[in-house]
Amino acid sequence: MEKKYIVGIDLGGTKIAGALSDKKGNILYKKTIDTLAFEGSDNVMARIIWLINHVINENNINNEDVIGIGIASPGPLNSEEGVIIETPNLPFKKFPLKSTVENATGIKTFIDNDANAAALGEFLFGAGKGVENLIYITVSTGIGGGIIINKKLYRGKTGNAGELGHMTVEPQGPRCNCGNYGCLEAMASGTAIARVARERLQHFEKLNDEKSLLLSYDNITAKEVFECASKGDKLSLEVVDYTSNYLGIGIASFINIFDPEMIVIGGGVSKVGDILFDRLRKIALERSFNVMSSTVKIVPASLGTDAGIVGAIAIISERLL
Amino acid sequence: MEKKYIVGIDLGGTKIAGALSDKKGNILYKKTIDTLAFEGSDNVMARIIWLINHVINENNINNEDVIGIGIASPGPLNSEEGVIIETPNLPFKKFPLKSTVENATGIKTFIDNDANAAALGEFLFGAGKGVENLIYITVSTGIGGGIIINKKLYRGKTGNAGELGHMTVEPQGPRCNCGNYGCLEAMASGTAIARVARERLQHFEKLNDEKSLLLSYDNITAKEVFECASKGDKLSLEVVDYTSNYLGIGIASFINIFDPEMIVIGGGVSKVGDILFDRLRKIALERSFNVMSSTVKIVPASLGTDAGIVGAIAIISERLL
Repeated sequence: MEKKYIVGIDLGGTKIAGALSDKKGNILYKKTIDTLAFEGSDNVMARIIWLINHVINENNINNEDVIGIGIASPGPLNSEEGVIIETPNLPFKKFPLKSTVENATGIKTFIDNDANAAALGEFLFGAGKGVENLIYITVSTGIGGGIIINKKLYRGKTGNAGELGHMTVEPQGPRCNCGNYGCLEAMASGTAIARVARERLQHFEKLNDEKSLLLSYDNITAKEVFECASKGDKLSLEVVDYTSNYLGIGIASFINIFDPEMIVIGGGVSKVGDILFDRLRKIALERSFNVMSSTVKIVPASLGTDAGIVGAIAIISERLL
Repeated sequence: MEKKYIVGIDLGGTKIAGALSDKKGNILYKKTIDTLAFEGSDNVMARIIWLINHVINENNINNEDVIGIGIASPGPLNSEEGVIIETPNLPFKKFPLKSTVENATGIKTFIDNDANAAALGEFLFGAGKGVENLIYITVSTGIGGGIIINKKLYRGKTGNAGELGHMTVEPQGPRCNCGNYGCLEAMASGTAIARVARERLQHFEKLNDEKSLLLSYDNITAKEVFECASKGDKLSLEVVDYTSNYLGIGIASFINIFDPEMIVIGGGVSKVGDILFDRLRKIALERSFNVMSSTVKIVPASLGTDAGIVGAIAIISERLL
């Protein structure tokens, strides 16, 4: 009998989401469980296998009906060998995730880092359907990326290509989590937006008569900064201008490097809409070659909360369909 | 009879070089003529056709023996349509170079910009033989680039991908020829190295007791800066450190983005050797992910003065062999 289904697993530090889809990526069933990372690798692994079996059994199909299992995981990982090298929020270190799942299920399994999987998801089932070349940037706590070239995910020599958040955009900038200074992630991620807002808030009152709306929040994140900016809050608008400028500079560089058809921006920060995208499009146009920037589309990701799980499913679509 | 030969044309603002090669890129004959760009497009075009015919006739072969004609030209150009869009030093504007040559010779012709052609040359016949993914950077008057992915030149949506010299590395930096600010080209090209040296020289004497060796030159170019730096000249070493730092930052970003097997650096500036490459390797290691930077090779181009013509030949090897 022809295999008809794909299992996708979105492995995160807090939650593990599992889903069953048809060949076209339509989700037929979805279930989310806690990761309980503190319980260690054996227990988390057991929970992943339980979730895979559950997703299959709940739909009255057999393992033989499944084309493959795609797992989107935080990196760095080795996609070809299927090994998680190390991740800060999961108990896996040099862990052979692919072979462990294959041995337990008898189903072909592939793993990719979550940003690469999300890029595949947007390319196959989301905003980037039908294009040949696409750059995906996810802006949330950090900044990740994925590169689609000639309709395939470009993984590079060691499988770690697409670390777009770690292009240097400000050589003298603050230290990034990666150890480098002034990475795009250090200048324009959600974390950076909140950091810049808090730093400026300390000096703002002394310099200005008006009070910032941000003062009414105990905990300032990128979300509050964009909300207050939308209401015309001066400090928040300054922070949005400052950080969007770096993201726009990064996008302009990606246009000059890749000449892509489309740049898709996902992650929590991308949900703020025009206040961000208007700025990005303006800066990208100013800072890149017109022959390329005049035709590139800069659009928000379209998969929303399902991005992780659809990305995991897309790993199998790309590899086995 | 089987076609056995390739014609390569390296079209420059001052000289046009033509060569005949076998299928393996071995140059059998070479001839260089003046461009005489001021004579206008018809005359330059006639000279190109003359050179092609000359290269074929001198070797006692016929047009039917030629697999294809590859032309490396300054850009921007449209490689798929074979049209030169506009170049500062040649009299061609929206000029159908490919079809004009094909109509005159009956031989299949392909054009690519000179940096992309040089990337193909290094990949097929030079330092990058045998790798799958390679980033080529040429550092001379400007900074150009070429991207080899999965053994093919990556051209992007409009055919202009690989403008690696126009990644922003210093947002507040000087204006670049492209209109943007702080591009890699504006910070680290041969032109930038000479500019920084001249600027610093004006202030150096006031601040330091020792005199710079650079003062003995009427015309300072990157060559003199590296020569004086090799002799321990303090100002020259400062300039080399300052500009190499930006090139190293660019390379680190390309490693994080592309995870390539090899980065090949060509162009006049690359000929200075270890004084540059030692710095680039150090900065690249410091500023990129160890999993990628520990395995990437950063090497000088190996084709030397033949880079242009071998690149032109490589266009045909990639397209037709």
